[in-house]
Amino acid sequence: MVEFQTPHLDAVFHALSDPTRRAMLHRLSNGEHTVSELATPFNMSLAGASKHIRVLESAGLVRRNVRGRTHICELQAARLAEAQEWLRHYERFWTTRLDDLEKLLRDEDRTSAGAIGPTPTKPAKP
Amino acid sequence: MVEFQTPHLDAVFHALSDPTRRAMLHRLSNGEHTVSELATPFNMSLAGASKHIRVLESAGLVRRNVRGRTHICELQAARLAEAQEWLRHYERFWTTRLDDLEKLLRDEDRTSAGAIGPTPTKPAKP
Repeated sequence: MVEFQTPHLDAVFHALSDPTRRAMLHRLSNGEHTVSELATPFNMSLAGASKHIRVLESAGLVRRNVRGRTHICELQAARLAEAQEWLRHYERFWTTRLDDLEKLLRDEDRTSAGAIGPTPTKPAKP
Repeated sequence: MVEFQTPHLDAVFHALSDPTRRAMLHRLSNGEHTVSELATPFNMSLAGASKHIRVLESAGLVRRNVRGRTHICELQAARLAEAQEWLRHYERFWTTRLDDLEKLLRDEDRTSAGAIGPTPTKPAKP
């Protein structure tokens, strides 16, 4: 079953279920940041930010590198690929919907093109 | 910011963070099921299954249709599309890695092709 191939998904989806943590990942997608840089836009204490970062670390989404007294956070995107792979199974549901919508619009176009087409010429009077 | 366009993501990712709920979605991807059908493979009480289904419903991932005394559950995949859309922003990280890997393998192929190529011909003795 699909589930057994994705042992990290509980932690990954849990980490993604919080808007602060998603915003932190978004910032890290633009490059490394220190813990205090990540805390700043949320007007958050270092302890509060650290708690969120620990959740991201334990889900394998962030690596914390210690350089002297500074903790630098780096995005680890591989586990996000696993999450996307899981979601890919459901893709057919929305692509089917889009295909249906496209067909519907095409049919409508064809119908309305018929309606505004040249009016049939009257047979010439004898 | 990306976050403001995805107000449902907290609930969706929270719903996906549990393996039982992911397995329920997987079963629903093959068609509608009653609550008791969804409960059976997990050896779970109806109350326990209902609790999970309520989480899926409140995330907009499942619709429960009541037909007489039977509750039929149906997958609602649109919110999964939102989750996938959110993840798409990070795609470049793993596709870049794959591109790097492909380049590395191609370079290695080229090097080893050179190594096993025809040995240089010795200059004819005078």
